[in-house]
Amino acid sequence: MAVIDLNADLGEGFGRWSLTDDVALLDVVTSANIACGFHAGDPSIMRRVCELAVARGVTIGAQVSYRDLAGFGRRSMEVPLGELAAEVAYQIGALEVFARAAGTRVAYVKPHGALYNRTVMDEAQAAAVVEGTMLASTAVGASLPLMGLPGSALLKAAADAGLAAVEEAFADRAYHDDGTLVPRSEPEAVVDDPDVVVARALAMVAGESIATVSGGSLSVAARSICVHGDTPGAAALAARIREELLGAGHDLDPFAAPPWE
Amino acid sequence: MAVIDLNADLGEGFGRWSLTDDVALLDVVTSANIACGFHAGDPSIMRRVCELAVARGVTIGAQVSYRDLAGFGRRSMEVPLGELAAEVAYQIGALEVFARAAGTRVAYVKPHGALYNRTVMDEAQAAAVVEGTMLASTAVGASLPLMGLPGSALLKAAADAGLAAVEEAFADRAYHDDGTLVPRSEPEAVVDDPDVVVARALAMVAGESIATVSGGSLSVAARSICVHGDTPGAAALAARIREELLGAGHDLDPFAAPPWE
Amino acid sequence: MAVIDLNADLGEGFGRWSLTDDVALLDVVTSANIACGFHAGDPSIMRRVCELAVARGVTIGAQVSYRDLAGFGRRSMEVPLGELAAEVAYQIGALEVFARAAGTRVAYVKPHGALYNRTVMDEAQAAAVVEGTMLASTAVGASLPLMGLPGSALLKAAADAGLAAVEEAFADRAYHDDGTLVPRSEPEAVVDDPDVVVARALAMVAGESIATVSGGSLSVAARSICVHGDTPGAAALAARIREELLGAGHDLDPFAAPPWE
Amino acid sequence: MAVIDLNADLGEGFGRWSLTDDVALLDVVTSANIACGFHAGDPSIMRRVCELAVARGVTIGAQVSYRDLAGFGRRSMEVPLGELAAEVAYQIGALEVFARAAGTRVAYVKPHGALYNRTVMDEAQAAAVVEGTMLASTAVGASLPLMGLPGSALLKAAADAGLAAVEEAFADRAYHDDGTLVPRSEPEAVVDDPDVVVARALAMVAGESIATVSGGSLSVAARSICVHGDTPGAAALAARIREELLGAGHDLDPFAAPPWE
Repeated sequence: MAVIDLNADLGEGFGRWSLTDDVALLDVVTSANIACGFHAGDPSIMRRVCELAVARGVTIGAQVSYRDLAGFGRRSMEVPLGELAAEVAYQIGALEVFARAAGTRVAYVKPHGALYNRTVMDEAQAAAVVEGTMLASTAVGASLPLMGLPGSALLKAAADAGLAAVEEAFADRAYHDDGTLVPRSEPEAVVDDPDVVVARALAMVAGESIATVSGGSLSVAARSICVHGDTPGAAALAARIREELLGAGHDLDPFAAPPWE
Repeated sequence: MAVIDLNADLGEGFGRWSLTDDVALLDVVTSANIACGFHAGDPSIMRRVCELAVARGVTIGAQVSYRDLAGFGRRSMEVPLGELAAEVAYQIGALEVFARAAGTRVAYVKPHGALYNRTVMDEAQAAAVVEGTMLASTAVGASLPLMGLPGSALLKAAADAGLAAVEEAFADRAYHDDGTLVPRSEPEAVVDDPDVVVARALAMVAGESIATVSGGSLSVAARSICVHGDTPGAAALAARIREELLGAGHDLDPFAAPPWE
Repeated sequence: MAVIDLNADLGEGFGRWSLTDDVALLDVVTSANIACGFHAGDPSIMRRVCELAVARGVTIGAQVSYRDLAGFGRRSMEVPLGELAAEVAYQIGALEVFARAAGTRVAYVKPHGALYNRTVMDEAQAAAVVEGTMLASTAVGASLPLMGLPGSALLKAAADAGLAAVEEAFADRAYHDDGTLVPRSEPEAVVDDPDVVVARALAMVAGESIATVSGGSLSVAARSICVHGDTPGAAALAARIREELLGAGHDLDPFAAPPWE
Repeated sequence: MAVIDLNADLGEGFGRWSLTDDVALLDVVTSANIACGFHAGDPSIMRRVCELAVARGVTIGAQVSYRDLAGFGRRSMEVPLGELAAEVAYQIGALEVFARAAGTRVAYVKPHGALYNRTVMDEAQAAAVVEGTMLASTAVGASLPLMGLPGSALLKAAADAGLAAVEEAFADRAYHDDGTLVPRSEPEAVVDDPDVVVARALAMVAGESIATVSGGSLSVAARSICVHGDTPGAAALAARIREELLGAGHDLDPFAAPPWE
């Protein structure tokens, strides 16, 4: 039986707008990627989600993004590298305030949206995200792990810098044969059938291969499974994945022990 | 002879735009109020100014503001109090990252512009600023002093909450008889004559009274004098104030010992 | 039987976030207050809602706001009057592009949120909104009516400037005896019972008085009734109001004839 | 002797921040590219620069940009094409209000910064900018010309859509042999010597070739010369270029006759 983490993007509203079903998802996941204000997540939301996460024993991570509210961080941007590093550090520091006020600490960093996708291949931006994470390390009192796609430039840059590199997999996203995700701009990017999503999650955790979009098969070893909560029914599906994983005897456990322990 | 702090607003550019002469002012002041991104100050600027401040032994404070880039934080806003507190904490946390990366810590908080003026009288918003400061206290590892106008609701709220309340005076601003500042919207708000500004600074530090806008006299006791650097000649004037204070035998000393000491 | 307009706030999403049920409401209202980007409403949303409105013969109005995405335009702001006028004109011009591309024109202006509430009493800001509307009149090819609360400073300023002043009433909001709305910050601000809301709408249109929050009665004569669509069930309630008004023999008709006619 | 237009980027301040020397440049140029709020330019600035331009008989163009205040529009962005088109139209419409209020109309469109550079090669984004320009054509009452680099995808897309394509050249920027600009990220991107800048402007207008960065020669035929005004001395240099062109017998004339004529 395996030890697995479940992570989800949380706190992705802004002001009057809501998106993620934060309360439902916090009953499902072991790690919460909390938006830090650049693509979503205002200070009040960040504060509340941190408090909710701590009350449930969920580990907190900083979901850092390009500065892009209008595009929800899904617009890939050519940001000068020094500015990108500073923007990443800024976001981590802002979240750390609410994590600490709630009784824990930011325990890892995960890029969001276009920054996540771009740092799969873009070594320079990957290094800038790592630099920003290291900039923040004194303030957070630790060298934070980076979460990303197996084989990504981001995880390589993290490892090169001596940071922990945490691999994650997506039960509801289609994969190419090389382990990259099918982009959201393509029709088959998202797996819609809940049964298939659950089956893929179980296979991934058991170390079995899954079908790729081309019909091939792929082994997706990962320390964490990412579930989504920004569409109707998503939180229920995430809860079902949790139950099935527990039912199969796996152990749900955050990869980063919450710093309050 | 008196012990006095000199503070100035720094890092008030944004992206392509510059405003304050940060390098010149850091050679003058003992405390730097660094903009945190809500009225000015992007992450790159914040990082650089923190590094410059540490290199010169200048204490760092968070200059927190309403979220108002277009109005430079000079538009008084009716922000729900919980949101205002969270916004203040967010800004302190973001700056703390760069302060810590540079080898020091955020040592105090000073509201900017309309938030500064409003919290002279508005007890509810003053309490929210104090609440936000206390929210950030775990992350910054200290209960931060608040800097403000003598007699202001802000300093009262700070004292009520057990935080240090640091009084400041303005050598280049006109005062009413009750110790409040003449608003910038009025023509006589700013003292233009450099000789008068210097004389007022010397008087304030020596414990002598200054002339009010009505022709009365006012004693402005303060632990810190605020100098400005966002207009042509302002940095030179600030430097002259420093020299004259030193020449008169006063001791320039930050009110908050830099935490790296 | 009376002639009445039904208006609603539309297009109040932003980027990834949705709020108003635009399609459902456009089947109900005769006038659409479209958000222009300052409190909500990105260019893509504005374009789409304009196209949908034209397809249904609904008149388009510019719902102008303070620049305040984070507060959804609900934070009252002390904006210098010249800046406020220019901001209003900017928003009208931006919306006019999409109105004209869809085959119509912006036909009126209605302030949103805190700007709406503030210009009930604040004569200076009311005049600035009117000035901004007049600034935009050359570009839109007409002197646009202002919509607001009966007796408001806004409608007085509009009338003084020679603009049409359109009075509106709120079926789901509680009133004070003096005709002002109970602020949203108070618990009884919103009438929750759908039957009561419908009854109040019918009374208002029939020229009968409604109960105020103090237990008094108030006659609310208005050319337009505002319905809401930003909460669950709101669009269905709006549709019911429409049906009951039609069933009672009233005539639904926009106050501003769509310019394409 | 040739007929030539001089254009400059104007109104590139934002709120408290200034950048371009608008008054000085408006005495030099025949066409003003006015920032529309997405990379710079708030409504008050837009209004004032439109009024100043009209007072001097200078033609007004919309300098449209990615939504990127923090990066001054210099961060290339992967914006969904429909959103990009709508964002372009929004900006044109906003500027049109102030152009019309000042007595003229927006007479052309020129992309700014990263959008300018990207649409040299990126056919999809070039088409989106043209689509946005055409979306705005009903509101501005004309099919607006696009200004860009000779041979650019932008000018091809404009011509394909039946819009006028206006070629411009840069006297102070280094060129590659293929007519593309050396990017600002490279050290030799900008020609610093004022005498060389003037000589290049004269050569360009006279139809003579200029030296490329590789040492080759290039003929840069253009209907307009772009001058800059965002650095110290730039406005003086622009004025000198104007005088030398006039002294050489050339005729300064906007490519788009101001619509008030």
